Amino acid sequence: MEFWFTERQTRDLGLTFRVKESLWVERTPYQTLAILDTYQYGRMLVLDGAVQTTEADEHIYHEMLTHVPLLIHPRPRRILVVGGGDGGTVREALKHPEVELVELVEIDERVIAAAKRFLPTISSALEDPRARVIVGDGVAHVGSAQGVYDVILVDSTDPVGPAIALFEEPFFASLHRALKADGLFAAQTKTPYLDGALIGQIHHWVAKRFPVACLYTAAIPTYPTGLWSFMVGSKRHPHDRPDEVRAKRLETKYYTPQVHRAAFTLPRAVEEALERAGSTLP
Amino acid sequence: MEFWFTERQTRDLGLTFRVKESLWVERTPYQTLAILDTYQYGRMLVLDGAVQTTEADEHIYHEMLTHVPLLIHPRPRRILVVGGGDGGTVREALKHPEVELVELVEIDERVIAAAKRFLPTISSALEDPRARVIVGDGVAHVGSAQGVYDVILVDSTDPVGPAIALFEEPFFASLHRALKADGLFAAQTKTPYLDGALIGQIHHWVAKRFPVACLYTAAIPTYPTGLWSFMVGSKRHPHDRPDEVRAKRLETKYYTPQVHRAAFTLPRAVEEALERAGSTLP
Repeated sequence: MEFWFTERQTRDLGLTFRVKESLWVERTPYQTLAILDTYQYGRMLVLDGAVQTTEADEHIYHEMLTHVPLLIHPRPRRILVVGGGDGGTVREALKHPEVELVELVEIDERVIAAAKRFLPTISSALEDPRARVIVGDGVAHVGSAQGVYDVILVDSTDPVGPAIALFEEPFFASLHRALKADGLFAAQTKTPYLDGALIGQIHHWVAKRFPVACLYTAAIPTYPTGLWSFMVGSKRHPHDRPDEVRAKRLETKYYTPQVHRAAFTLPRAVEEALERAGSTLP
Repeated sequence: MEFWFTERQTRDLGLTFRVKESLWVERTPYQTLAILDTYQYGRMLVLDGAVQTTEADEHIYHEMLTHVPLLIHPRPRRILVVGGGDGGTVREALKHPEVELVELVEIDERVIAAAKRFLPTISSALEDPRARVIVGDGVAHVGSAQGVYDVILVDSTDPVGPAIALFEEPFFASLHRALKADGLFAAQTKTPYLDGALIGQIHHWVAKRFPVACLYTAAIPTYPTGLWSFMVGSKRHPHDRPDEVRAKRLETKYYTPQVHRAAFTLPRAVEEALERAGSTLP
């Protein structure tokens, strides 16, 4: 007898995983949370039916969300992670010895609890003395901060349920206010193959406020289409000059400075769609 | 009522597509061939249950298999395509005005017939006067050629059924013999995320014979993991210097010279696995 979990990625497309065991399922105040143990990708966090992270490929997403912006910044000391209750982004940020404090603001404390119990290799750093875990609303937290952070990492779920406001224009305005004068942010922005309109809109909002507004990608097998994107918005530091000396000291499985630079090279149709969006949006 | 086709990509993983209509299914002398019309990716060629190409994303695979090697070569005139009966690789090769002749050797004439009938946007160039379609065994064809081709494009199915010999060492030796003194080839080599051992083996066979032996990747949603790889073996011309002038004249949706160069940048773990394979194989 075989068990399969299928994520319906769109109305017409799904990715399906053979499951060893369903380790945990609960309905939290915000979403349905499940931890599945799969044969292909190990343990997996699923929220509202969508794969968030798996033991086998989480390093790709977490390294690329974190090291690209942190190595653009010459001395990132104070970091904010919005969402990301599994702890993988905090773990990567704490690999940087310059970092003095990583605040994590996660709205759903049950995600943190499940990650600590079932995904120890991902959540390990949440107990680090340089990590500060806040259970609360990331939008409100960013909205109340002024010139505080060197780098903000938006590690959100998709724009449904609790994360909708993280994909709206006021949030990008408040990211700008919350960052220091040379601060920068990175945010996950879904896949250019299916979500081009949303990405074009976000790029427009970011480019209105940040002199550097660039999209980069990473190849993540468990996310829809396998090609995932991230937006970086930077007040001063250019996106394509990672600090090679600090990069050498990092232990990574996906990220290298070469990967960093290559990740900003987009397929022609994606590049052109971004340019079109920039010229037609108000 | 909904119809879904699921490709079992591994024993533990599948990709599933909602189907409008099954347009054609037949058992050929070599394999089971199906043409499905899907909601997400349009019409799709399926061989022995594995997705070969879809209307919506075929350009990525065909552009990257073709334009990377053809723009490395300063004057590609005579081209051989091994496999690729759908015609997409021939179509891309014929975009280069320097090309005088593209021979296609496809073992299964029913693939060609189905592509002509159901996938006209992919197969269109098979009727071009510069295209020569040969129904036959690609391995034997390459084995009997000596110093004939500028570029060979190995557009194979996976290493099961009729394509097994295209993933064995003697084939790479005969590719070398079939190429001119400054010739080069590119071959699809599955995904680095699941097929690292096979890729390491092929890289070793190619590097034994070709001074330039490099892996590159493209993000293809309908192939397992979404990250696909290609091996280029070149007798003389370097892999990372595409002809920018000729590139400008090409109509593409994925390929650009920037994409070309970035495609050779591999995730750290893939790079290291290739190096390890190179040092341990006989």
